[in-house]
Amino acid sequence: MGNEDQREGILFVVSAPSGAGKTSLCRELIDTFPEIGQSVSFTTRSMRAGERDGVDYHFVDHLVFERMIAANQFAEWARVHGNLYGTALNTLEQATEQGIDLLLDIDYQGAAQLKKNCTQGVFIFILPPDLSELERRLRSRGTDSDEVIRRRHEVAREEIAQAVWYDYLVVNDDLTSAVDKIKSIVTAERCRSVRSGELLQQIIK
Amino acid sequence: MGNEDQREGILFVVSAPSGAGKTSLCRELIDTFPEIGQSVSFTTRSMRAGERDGVDYHFVDHLVFERMIAANQFAEWARVHGNLYGTALNTLEQATEQGIDLLLDIDYQGAAQLKKNCTQGVFIFILPPDLSELERRLRSRGTDSDEVIRRRHEVAREEIAQAVWYDYLVVNDDLTSAVDKIKSIVTAERCRSVRSGELLQQIIK
Repeated sequence: MGNEDQREGILFVVSAPSGAGKTSLCRELIDTFPEIGQSVSFTTRSMRAGERDGVDYHFVDHLVFERMIAANQFAEWARVHGNLYGTALNTLEQATEQGIDLLLDIDYQGAAQLKKNCTQGVFIFILPPDLSELERRLRSRGTDSDEVIRRRHEVAREEIAQAVWYDYLVVNDDLTSAVDKIKSIVTAERCRSVRSGELLQQIIK
Repeated sequence: MGNEDQREGILFVVSAPSGAGKTSLCRELIDTFPEIGQSVSFTTRSMRAGERDGVDYHFVDHLVFERMIAANQFAEWARVHGNLYGTALNTLEQATEQGIDLLLDIDYQGAAQLKKNCTQGVFIFILPPDLSELERRLRSRGTDSDEVIRRRHEVAREEIAQAVWYDYLVVNDDLTSAVDKIKSIVTAERCRSVRSGELLQQIIK
Protein backbone atom coordinates (compact mmCIF):
# COMPACT_ATOMS: atom_id res chain seq x y z
CA MET A 1 0.00 0.00 0.00
CA GLY A 2 3.01 2.33 -0.11
CA ASN A 3 3.82 4.59 -3.04
CA GLU A 4 6.60 5.02 -5.54
CA ASP A 5 7.88 8.39 -4.28
CA GLN A 6 8.29 7.46 -0.61
CA ARG A 7 6.30 10.56 0.29
CA GLU A 8 4.19 10.77 3.44
CA GLY A 9 0.59 9.59 3.32
CA ILE A 10 -2.09 12.23 2.79
CA LEU A 11 -5.23 12.50 4.89
CA PHE A 12 -8.30 13.28 2.75
CA VAL A 13 -11.22 14.45 4.87
CA VAL A 14 -14.61 14.50 3.14
CA SER A 15 -17.75 16.12 4.57
CA ALA A 16 -21.16 16.89 3.13
CA PRO A 17 -24.67 17.73 4.26
CA SER A 18 -26.98 14.70 4.29
CA GLY A 19 -28.32 13.99 0.80
CA ALA A 20 -25.42 15.59 -1.10
CA GLY A 21 -24.31 12.21 -2.47
CA LYS A 22 -21.15 11.77 -0.42
CA THR A 23 -21.41 8.00 -0.02
CA SER A 24 -21.52 7.32 -3.79
CA LEU A 25 -18.65 9.73 -4.40
CA CYS A 26 -16.43 8.14 -1.75
CA ARG A 27 -17.19 4.68 -3.11
CA GLU A 28 -16.20 5.74 -6.64
CA LEU A 29 -13.02 7.30 -5.26
CA ILE A 30 -11.99 4.12 -3.48
CA ASP A 31 -12.77 2.07 -6.61
CA THR A 32 -10.41 4.27 -8.63
CA PHE A 33 -7.70 4.46 -5.99
CA PRO A 34 -7.88 1.12 -4.15
CA GLU A 35 -4.56 1.97 -2.47
CA ILE A 36 -6.34 4.65 -0.40
CA GLY A 37 -7.04 3.27 3.05
CA GLN A 38 -10.09 3.98 5.15
CA SER A 39 -9.50 4.89 8.75
CA VAL A 40 -11.01 2.48 11.28
CA SER A 41 -12.72 4.44 14.07
CA PHE A 42 -13.12 3.54 17.73
CA THR A 43 -16.65 3.21 19.08
CA THR A 44 -18.42 2.26 22.29
CA ARG A 45 -21.55 1.04 20.53
CA SER A 46 -22.25 -2.71 20.36
CA MET A 47 -21.03 -4.76 17.45
CA ARG A 48 -23.80 -5.59 14.94
CA ALA A 49 -24.26 -8.82 13.01
CA GLY A 50 -21.69 -9.05 10.22
CA GLU A 51 -19.34 -6.43 11.71
CA ARG A 52 -15.78 -7.32 12.59
CA ASP A 53 -13.68 -5.76 15.34
CA GLY A 54 -10.68 -3.91 13.89
CA VAL A 55 -12.25 -3.85 10.41
CA ASP A 56 -15.55 -1.95 10.71
CA TYR A 57 -14.63 -0.35 14.03
CA HIS A 58 -12.38 -0.87 16.98
CA PHE A 59 -15.05 -1.81 19.53
CA VAL A 60 -14.10 -0.67 23.04
CA ASP A 61 -16.03 -0.07 26.25
CA HIS A 62 -16.80 3.36 27.71
CA LEU A 63 -13.99 3.18 30.24
CA VAL A 64 -11.33 2.55 27.59
CA PHE A 65 -12.76 5.30 25.39
CA GLU A 66 -12.86 7.85 28.26
CA ARG A 67 -9.24 7.01 29.11
CA MET A 68 -8.25 7.60 25.48
CA ILE A 69 -10.00 10.99 25.56
CA ALA A 70 -8.22 11.91 28.80
CA ALA A 71 -4.87 10.90 27.25
CA ASN A 72 -5.51 13.07 24.15
CA GLN A 73 -5.38 10.02 21.93
CA PHE A 74 -8.16 11.18 19.59
CA ALA A 75 -7.77 13.42 16.55
CA GLU A 76 -11.53 13.87 16.81
CA TRP A 77 -14.37 12.27 18.73
CA ALA A 78 -18.11 12.77 19.15
CA ARG A 79 -21.12 11.44 21.06
CA VAL A 80 -23.92 10.25 18.77
CA HIS A 81 -27.16 8.86 20.29
CA GLY A 82 -25.33 8.13 23.55
CA ASN A 83 -22.46 6.24 21.89
CA LEU A 84 -18.93 7.54 21.49
CA TYR A 85 -17.10 7.50 18.15
CA GLY A 86 -13.54 8.67 17.54
CA THR A 87 -10.55 8.64 15.22
CA ALA A 88 -7.27 7.86 17.00
CA LEU A 89 -4.32 10.16 16.29
CA ASN A 90 -2.21 7.02 16.23
CA THR A 91 -4.18 5.58 13.27
CA LEU A 92 -3.54 8.75 11.25
CA GLU A 93 0.11 9.06 12.22
CA GLN A 94 0.88 5.46 11.29
CA ALA A 95 -0.70 5.85 7.85
CA THR A 96 1.18 9.11 7.23
CA GLU A 97 4.51 7.55 8.18
CA GLN A 98 3.88 4.47 6.06
CA GLY A 99 3.01 6.61 3.03
CA ILE A 100 -0.62 5.41 3.01
CA ASP A 101 -3.25 7.93 1.91
CA LEU A 102 -6.38 7.79 4.04
CA LEU A 103 -9.97 8.77 3.33
CA LEU A 104 -12.01 10.05 6.26
CA ASP A 105 -15.75 10.42 5.75
CA ILE A 106 -16.78 12.63 8.64
CA ASP A 107 -19.20 15.44 9.60
CA TYR A 108 -18.07 19.06 9.80
CA GLN A 109 -17.76 19.05 13.58
CA GLY A 110 -15.36 16.10 13.50
CA ALA A 111 -13.57 17.69 10.56
CA ALA A 112 -13.14 20.93 12.52
CA GLN A 113 -11.43 19.02 15.34
CA LEU A 114 -9.21 17.24 12.79
CA LYS A 115 -8.30 20.54 11.16
CA LYS A 116 -6.96 21.71 14.54
CA ASN A 117 -5.05 18.48 15.23
CA CYS A 118 -3.90 17.51 11.71
CA THR A 119 -2.92 20.67 9.87
CA GLN A 120 -1.60 18.60 6.95
CA GLY A 121 -5.00 17.14 6.02
CA VAL A 122 -6.80 17.93 2.77
CA PHE A 123 -10.36 19.04 3.51
CA ILE A 124 -13.03 18.48 0.84
CA PHE A 125 -16.66 19.58 1.13
CA ILE A 126 -19.33 18.08 -1.15
CA LEU A 127 -22.14 20.49 -1.96
CA PRO A 128 -25.58 19.86 -3.41
CA PRO A 129 -26.19 22.07 -6.47
CA ASP A 130 -28.66 24.08 -4.36
CA LEU A 131 -30.82 23.57 -1.32
CA SER A 132 -34.02 22.87 -3.29
CA GLU A 133 -32.19 20.05 -5.10
CA LEU A 134 -31.08 18.70 -1.72
CA GLU A 135 -34.71 18.75 -0.56
CA ARG A 136 -35.75 16.92 -3.72
CA ARG A 137 -33.17 14.20 -3.06
CA LEU A 138 -34.26 13.79 0.56
CA ARG A 139 -37.91 13.55 -0.57
CA SER A 140 -37.11 11.04 -3.31
CA ARG A 141 -35.76 8.67 -0.67
CA GLY A 142 -39.35 8.54 0.60
CA THR A 143 -38.19 7.61 4.08
CA ASP A 144 -38.55 10.95 5.86
CA SER A 145 -41.54 13.02 6.98
CA ASP A 146 -42.05 16.67 5.94
CA GLU A 147 -41.01 17.81 9.40
CA VAL A 148 -37.79 15.76 9.26
CA ILE A 149 -37.02 17.11 5.77
CA ARG A 150 -37.62 20.73 6.89
CA ARG A 151 -35.25 20.26 9.84
CA ARG A 152 -32.63 18.59 7.62
CA HIS A 153 -32.90 21.55 5.26
CA GLU A 154 -32.09 23.94 8.11
CA VAL A 155 -29.22 21.76 9.31
CA ALA A 156 -27.85 21.57 5.74
CA ARG A 157 -27.91 25.37 5.54
CA GLU A 158 -25.81 25.58 8.71
CA GLU A 159 -23.46 22.86 7.50
CA ILE A 160 -22.93 24.51 4.11
CA ALA A 161 -21.95 27.74 5.87
CA GLN A 162 -19.04 25.70 7.35
CA ALA A 163 -17.75 24.86 3.89
CA VAL A 164 -15.74 28.10 3.72
CA TRP A 165 -12.86 26.76 5.78
CA TYR A 166 -12.50 23.55 3.73
CA ASP A 167 -9.71 23.47 1.10
CA TYR A 168 -11.92 22.30 -1.76
CA LEU A 169 -15.60 22.52 -2.67
CA VAL A 170 -17.09 19.96 -5.02
CA VAL A 171 -20.62 20.64 -6.29
CA ASN A 172 -22.42 17.36 -6.92
CA ASP A 173 -24.67 18.62 -9.73
CA ASP A 174 -23.64 15.71 -11.94
CA LEU A 175 -22.15 12.48 -10.55
CA THR A 176 -19.61 11.93 -13.36
CA SER A 177 -18.32 15.47 -13.10
CA ALA A 178 -18.20 15.39 -9.28
CA VAL A 179 -16.31 12.08 -9.33
CA ASP A 180 -13.83 13.56 -11.81
CA LYS A 181 -13.32 16.55 -9.51
CA ILE A 182 -12.72 14.53 -6.37
CA LYS A 183 -10.32 12.18 -8.21
CA SER A 184 -8.50 15.22 -9.58
CA ILE A 185 -8.09 16.64 -6.08
CA VAL A 186 -6.43 13.40 -4.95
CA THR A 187 -4.13 13.30 -8.00
CA ALA A 188 -3.24 17.00 -7.74
CA GLU A 189 -2.53 16.85 -4.01
CA ARG A 190 -0.15 13.96 -4.63
CA CYS A 191 1.78 16.26 -7.02
CA ARG A 192 2.16 19.13 -4.55
CA SER A 193 5.80 20.05 -4.23
CA VAL A 194 5.60 20.28 -0.44
CA ARG A 195 5.17 16.49 -0.49
CA SER A 196 7.93 15.83 -3.02
CA GLY A 197 11.20 16.93 -1.48
CA GLU A 198 12.79 13.49 -1.87
CA LEU A 199 11.59 13.16 -5.45
CA LEU A 200 13.73 16.14 -6.50
CA GLN A 201 16.80 14.72 -4.80
CA GLN A 202 16.34 11.42 -6.65
CA ILE A 203 16.08 13.13 -10.05
CA ILE A 204 19.09 15.36 -9.54
CA LYS A 205 21.17 12.45 -8.22
CA MET B 1 -14.75 31.90 -22.48
CA GLY B 2 -16.19 32.71 -19.02
CA ASN B 3 -17.15 30.05 -16.51
CA GLU B 4 -20.28 28.94 -14.74
CA ASP B 5 -19.29 30.04 -11.25
CA GLN B 6 -18.32 33.62 -12.05
CA ARG B 7 -15.04 33.03 -10.27
CA GLU B 8 -11.86 34.86 -11.18
CA GLY B 9 -9.60 33.43 -13.88
CA ILE B 10 -6.64 31.32 -12.73
CA LEU B 11 -3.12 31.78 -14.04
CA PHE B 12 -1.39 28.43 -14.66
CA VAL B 13 2.37 28.85 -15.07
CA VAL B 14 4.22 25.85 -16.53
CA SER B 15 8.02 25.50 -16.60
CA ALA B 16 10.33 22.61 -17.44
CA PRO B 17 13.94 21.97 -18.37
CA SER B 18 14.44 21.55 -22.11
CA GLY B 19 13.56 17.99 -23.19
CA ALA B 20 11.12 17.26 -20.35
CA GLY B 21 8.18 17.14 -22.77
CA LYS B 22 6.47 20.39 -21.78
CA THR B 23 5.24 21.28 -25.28
CA SER B 24 3.29 18.03 -25.76
CA LEU B 25 1.83 18.29 -22.27
CA CYS B 26 0.64 21.88 -22.77
CA ARG B 27 -0.88 20.96 -26.13
CA GLU B 28 -2.83 18.08 -24.56
CA LEU B 29 -3.98 20.37 -21.77
CA ILE B 30 -5.34 22.97 -24.20
CA ASP B 31 -7.04 20.21 -26.22
CA THR B 32 -8.87 19.05 -23.09
CA PHE B 33 -9.67 22.52 -21.81
CA PRO B 34 -10.11 24.67 -24.94
CA GLU B 35 -11.55 27.43 -22.72
CA ILE B 36 -8.07 28.02 -21.26
CA GLY B 37 -6.53 31.02 -22.97
CA GLN B 38 -2.87 31.44 -23.84
CA SER B 39 -1.27 34.73 -22.93
CA VAL B 40 0.05 36.74 -25.89
CA SER B 41 3.52 38.12 -25.07
CA PHE B 42 5.13 41.35 -26.22
CA THR B 43 8.35 41.11 -28.21
CA THR B 44 10.80 43.34 -30.02
CA ARG B 45 11.89 40.65 -32.46
CA SER B 46 10.78 40.88 -36.11
CA MET B 47 7.59 39.18 -37.23
CA ARG B 48 8.22 35.92 -39.11
CA ALA B 49 6.32 34.58 -42.10
CA GLY B 50 2.93 33.27 -40.99
CA GLU B 51 2.92 35.11 -37.66
CA ARG B 52 0.19 37.60 -36.82
CA ASP B 53 0.48 40.65 -34.60
CA GLY B 54 -1.72 40.32 -31.51
CA VAL B 55 -2.09 36.57 -32.03
CA ASP B 56 1.40 35.07 -31.89
CA TYR B 57 2.92 38.11 -30.19
CA HIS B 58 2.31 41.79 -29.75
CA PHE B 59 5.16 43.07 -31.95
CA VAL B 60 6.55 46.37 -30.67
CA ASP B 61 9.81 48.29 -31.18
CA HIS B 62 12.54 48.64 -28.56
CA LEU B 63 11.45 52.13 -27.54
CA VAL B 64 7.89 51.03 -26.74
CA PHE B 65 9.15 47.97 -24.86
CA GLU B 66 11.64 50.04 -22.80
CA ARG B 67 8.86 52.49 -21.89
CA MET B 68 6.67 49.60 -20.75
CA ILE B 69 9.52 48.33 -18.55
CA ALA B 70 10.02 51.80 -17.07
CA ALA B 71 6.28 52.06 -16.35
CA ASN B 72 6.27 48.62 -14.57
CA GLN B 73 3.84 47.25 -17.10
CA PHE B 74 5.40 43.78 -17.25
CA ALA B 75 4.65 40.86 -14.94
CA GLU B 76 7.89 39.40 -16.29
CA TRP B 77 10.28 40.16 -19.11
CA ALA B 78 13.62 38.85 -20.42
CA ARG B 79 16.25 39.48 -23.06
CA VAL B 80 16.88 36.45 -25.31
CA HIS B 81 19.49 36.64 -28.11
CA GLY B 82 19.25 40.44 -28.07
CA ASN B 83 15.46 40.55 -28.33
CA LEU B 84 13.09 41.48 -25.53
CA TYR B 85 10.11 39.32 -24.56
CA GLY B 86 7.57 40.09 -21.87
CA THR B 87 4.14 39.33 -20.40
CA ALA B 88 2.08 42.45 -19.66
CA LEU B 89 0.46 42.69 -16.23
CA ASN B 90 -2.55 44.09 -18.03
CA THR B 91 -3.01 40.88 -20.07
CA LEU B 92 -3.07 38.81 -16.88
CA GLU B 93 -5.34 41.17 -14.96
CA GLN B 94 -7.92 41.33 -17.75
CA ALA B 95 -8.10 37.53 -17.99
CA THR B 96 -8.46 37.22 -14.21
CA GLU B 97 -11.28 39.76 -14.09
CA GLN B 98 -13.09 38.16 -17.02
CA GLY B 99 -12.89 34.73 -15.39
CA ILE B 100 -10.60 33.36 -18.11
CA ASP B 101 -8.00 30.81 -17.04
CA LEU B 102 -4.63 31.37 -18.71
CA LEU B 103 -1.75 29.03 -19.47
CA LEU B 104 1.74 30.53 -19.41
CA ASP B 105 4.56 28.39 -20.79
CA ILE B 106 7.65 30.12 -19.44
CA ASP B 107 11.15 29.43 -18.11
CA TYR B 108 11.93 29.44 -14.39
CA GLN B 109 13.44 32.92 -14.43
CA GLY B 110 10.28 34.41 -15.93
CA ALA B 111 8.20 32.30 -13.56
CA ALA B 112 10.17 33.63 -10.59
CA GLN B 113 9.32 37.21 -11.61
CA LEU B 114 5.67 36.23 -12.05
CA LYS B 115 5.62 34.62 -8.63
CA LYS B 116 6.65 37.96 -7.14
CA ASN B 117 4.10 39.96 -9.16
CA CYS B 118 1.16 37.51 -9.32
CA THR B 119 0.90 35.76 -6.00
CA GLN B 120 -2.37 34.11 -7.06
CA GLY B 121 -0.78 32.07 -9.88
CA VAL B 122 -0.56 28.27 -9.85
CA PHE B 123 3.03 27.20 -10.56
CA ILE B 124 3.64 23.79 -12.15
CA PHE B 125 7.06 22.30 -12.88
CA ILE B 126 7.43 19.39 -15.33
CA LEU B 127 10.27 17.03 -14.45
CA PRO B 128 12.00 14.40 -16.55
CA PRO B 129 12.03 11.03 -14.71
CA ASP B 130 15.77 11.49 -14.17
CA LEU B 131 18.64 13.35 -15.77
CA SER B 132 19.93 10.37 -17.76
CA GLU B 133 16.47 10.03 -19.33
CA LEU B 134 16.59 13.73 -20.18
CA GLU B 135 19.97 13.22 -21.86
CA ARG B 136 18.57 10.28 -23.83
CA ARG B 137 15.69 12.46 -25.07
CA LEU B 138 18.03 15.27 -26.10
CA ARG B 139 20.25 12.77 -27.96
CA SER B 140 17.30 11.11 -29.70
CA ARG B 141 16.45 14.44 -31.30
CA GLY B 142 19.77 14.05 -33.11
CA THR B 143 20.09 17.81 -33.57
CA ASP B 144 22.60 18.64 -30.83
CA SER B 145 26.33 17.99 -30.43
CA ASP B 146 27.79 16.21 -27.37
CA GLU B 147 29.06 19.52 -26.04
CA VAL B 148 25.62 21.13 -26.37
CA ILE B 149 24.00 18.13 -24.66
CA ARG B 150 26.52 18.24 -21.80
CA ARG B 151 25.82 21.94 -21.26
CA ARG B 152 22.04 21.38 -21.43
CA HIS B 153 22.43 18.65 -18.82
CA GLU B 154 24.14 21.10 -16.46
CA VAL B 155 21.51 23.76 -17.13
CA ALA B 156 18.72 21.22 -16.51
CA ARG B 157 20.31 20.36 -13.15
CA GLU B 158 20.23 24.02 -12.15
CA GLU B 159 16.67 24.42 -13.41
CA ILE B 160 15.42 21.37 -11.54
CA ALA B 161 16.86 22.78 -8.33
CA GLN B 162 14.40 25.70 -8.84
CA ALA B 163 11.44 23.34 -8.84
CA VAL B 164 11.21 23.48 -5.03
CA TRP B 165 9.33 26.77 -4.99
CA TYR B 166 6.71 25.67 -7.55
CA ASP B 167 3.31 24.56 -6.22
CA TYR B 168 3.20 21.29 -8.15
CA LEU B 169 5.74 18.86 -9.60
CA VAL B 170 4.71 16.59 -12.46
CA VAL B 171 7.15 13.84 -13.41
CA ASN B 172 6.86 13.09 -17.12
CA ASP B 173 7.83 9.42 -16.93
CA ASP B 174 4.77 8.43 -18.92
CA LEU B 175 2.88 10.87 -21.15
CA THR B 176 -0.64 9.57 -20.34
CA SER B 177 0.00 9.70 -16.62
CA ALA B 178 1.64 13.15 -16.82
CA VAL B 179 -1.27 14.52 -18.88
CA ASP B 180 -3.71 13.12 -16.30
CA LYS B 181 -1.76 14.83 -13.52
CA ILE B 182 -1.63 18.24 -15.17
CA LYS B 183 -5.36 18.06 -16.06
CA SER B 184 -6.10 17.08 -12.46
CA ILE B 185 -4.19 20.10 -11.18
CA VAL B 186 -6.35 22.39 -13.35
CA THR B 187 -9.59 20.71 -12.23
CA ALA B 188 -8.57 20.66 -8.55
CA GLU B 189 -7.45 24.30 -8.54
CA ARG B 190 -10.85 25.28 -9.96
CA CYS B 191 -12.45 23.58 -6.93
CA ARG B 192 -10.38 25.42 -4.33
CA SER B 193 -12.67 27.11 -1.84
CA VAL B 194 -10.65 30.34 -1.90
CA ARG B 195 -11.98 30.77 -5.45
CA SER B 196 -15.57 29.83 -4.65
CA GLY B 197 -16.92 32.42 -2.24
CA GLU B 198 -19.81 33.36 -4.55
CA LEU B 199 -20.67 29.72 -5.22
CA LEU B 200 -21.53 29.19 -1.56
CA GLN B 201 -23.74 32.26 -1.47
CA GLN B 202 -25.66 30.99 -4.52
CA ILE B 203 -26.28 27.58 -2.96
CA ILE B 204 -27.42 28.94 0.38
CA LYS B 205 -29.68 31.51 -1.30
